[in-house]
Amino acid sequence: MLNKEKVLEVLAQVNDPELHRSLTDLKMVRDVVIQDGKVEITIALTVPNCPLKGQIESDVRAATAALPEVKEVSVQLISMTDEERKALLGEAKEGTAVQYNRIQRIVAVMSGKGGVGKSLVTGLLATALAREGYQVGVLDADITGPSIPMLFGLHGPVEPGPVGIRPLQSRTGIKVMSMNFLLESEDQPVIWRGPLVGKAITQLWGDVMWGDLDYLLVDLPPGTSDASLTTMQSLPVNGIVMVTTPQKLASMVVRKAVHMAQAVKTPIVGVVENMAYFVCPDTGRKHFIFGPSHTGEVALAAYAPLLVQLPIDQNIATLCDAGEIEMVTLAEIPELLKAFTQAMPVVVNRPV
Amino acid sequence: MLNKEKVLEVLAQVNDPELHRSLTDLKMVRDVVIQDGKVEITIALTVPNCPLKGQIESDVRAATAALPEVKEVSVQLISMTDEERKALLGEAKEGTAVQYNRIQRIVAVMSGKGGVGKSLVTGLLATALAREGYQVGVLDADITGPSIPMLFGLHGPVEPGPVGIRPLQSRTGIKVMSMNFLLESEDQPVIWRGPLVGKAITQLWGDVMWGDLDYLLVDLPPGTSDASLTTMQSLPVNGIVMVTTPQKLASMVVRKAVHMAQAVKTPIVGVVENMAYFVCPDTGRKHFIFGPSHTGEVALAAYAPLLVQLPIDQNIATLCDAGEIEMVTLAEIPELLKAFTQAMPVVVNRPV
Repeated sequence: MLNKEKVLEVLAQVNDPELHRSLTDLKMVRDVVIQDGKVEITIALTVPNCPLKGQIESDVRAATAALPEVKEVSVQLISMTDEERKALLGEAKEGTAVQYNRIQRIVAVMSGKGGVGKSLVTGLLATALAREGYQVGVLDADITGPSIPMLFGLHGPVEPGPVGIRPLQSRTGIKVMSMNFLLESEDQPVIWRGPLVGKAITQLWGDVMWGDLDYLLVDLPPGTSDASLTTMQSLPVNGIVMVTTPQKLASMVVRKAVHMAQAVKTPIVGVVENMAYFVCPDTGRKHFIFGPSHTGEVALAAYAPLLVQLPIDQNIATLCDAGEIEMVTLAEIPELLKAFTQAMPVVVNRPV
Repeated sequence: MLNKEKVLEVLAQVNDPELHRSLTDLKMVRDVVIQDGKVEITIALTVPNCPLKGQIESDVRAATAALPEVKEVSVQLISMTDEERKALLGEAKEGTAVQYNRIQRIVAVMSGKGGVGKSLVTGLLATALAREGYQVGVLDADITGPSIPMLFGLHGPVEPGPVGIRPLQSRTGIKVMSMNFLLESEDQPVIWRGPLVGKAITQLWGDVMWGDLDYLLVDLPPGTSDASLTTMQSLPVNGIVMVTTPQKLASMVVRKAVHMAQAVKTPIVGVVENMAYFVCPDTGRKHFIFGPSHTGEVALAAYAPLLVQLPIDQNIATLCDAGEIEMVTLAEIPELLKAFTQAMPVVVNRPV
């Protein structure tokens, strides 16, 4: 016979999609009233306006409706008080979103040199992986000069979730977190010395509800100082994509980053050359604006394959400035994706 | 009558060109022998193979030869022992080259954004000022990703002078100092956290024998963290040249640097837009590869003039990779020089 215990039994099988624990275990089931085969269930969300409330509601509805004798299910959503949430997640007070996240692979996009297109490569690779059906996140580790928010057309503020900050979602479903989402205006400077920069990066990693991800791409700032050091020492980075441009000058600085990665024993997945050439739209001729390529020297130092050479393309700049990097189509992107996914398994040696 | 005292009297008027103190005061005059109008003078240099020994010798010779009754002057150069030098410059043991330097104006070249051409603008401006007859120095404050040495074709090691490190001299006489001159190889990484980076910058400033300079240009790394903070707080910077590219993305990040400069109350001399357009060598048509210019937004935020718009030029990349930035000729350089020297006096409010 249908009774409250049977309903609670099936609800014990329904998990909160972010916290990976059952609704009964999380004390989210507040009331079950049964009358003539009609079941009324009251669920307390951990935070008001939880973006996943639709999914929770439909999961509850489906599980309950599957019971014999159930004719109708209604779900009422309320939310926990701050005290209830803290009591429940007491063990998960600060910086512990990380224990709820399930991230398969962390890939840092690095260069050492500024302005070579690290954020572009991060955005293109994230988009290509998401199109393949992977769950993808982007952590913008450039605290003082973030490019990621503008490329994806995303603006703060971010909202708190039950155990950390919720990242923003891009149009194609990529989860994105950046220091810029925490600032009042996007051109406000972050005038911090290194230790604070490092702390911010560990928080963007550990205090953010990334959830289930196949790939988390970390967009590093230029240099081999705090941001790079903290990322490689505090995050379980599986591999690095090294970005460079053809110039000898860039090659020299990028080789510094290669030697840093080797010093901290983080594998380099491959090398991307950006701004390889410009195709004149009038003549179709390739112009090697930044000179003959010195990227071979980077790949050699890195013992890693050249994944792709990307051209300079006016449409890319236009789409990036418009926040539409996910709309960029380049013949080289499938090549990048293929080379990356082929090289990646080799370096997955520290699964999270 | 000609005697030793008269010779010492004139030598008391001859200054060491670096230390700005007289040779007698510096105990550099070790012996004066006079015989039949022939004067033999022994001078002890503060360091062996002092690069200014030729100038010291000719100054001594000229001053002595001007005395009546002198028929011939010979100068013998020896060098002080370490102990003698330390005893003499005891008050100037460490970090005090700064008290011998006479620097009229310090200009930081900044951006916030990486790869926009800060080092290029630094190099072009330094070269243009040197061609005008100014004494110019370049301090490369990009500790982890230095570009300046390669642009000028300079390589370490640097040599110690009496009270600090001697900067290297470029082909056109620009004094240059960079972290890379202190490394064993140019692609060795500097894996330092912020506080060490800041300390390195203060040493490249204060422990280097810059001597007499009309302009010291400081090439800052990207970001608004340690390097920029230390430079603006520890060096008496007179003004900032802000470098950007046309992209909206660059404009947003560069405005962060503008707001930082304003927060630390350092005047902005003007704004340089780099990579404004590419002139196709086949058709002569301008291609605005990085989109329409958003530099106006930077200039507006900075309350500063747009000094110049520089094109993307394949020859620049080639010359820079060859270490020959001083050979770059661009129609826009005289325009940059004029706009800079016109705007500069306005901001000279903290002479050193």
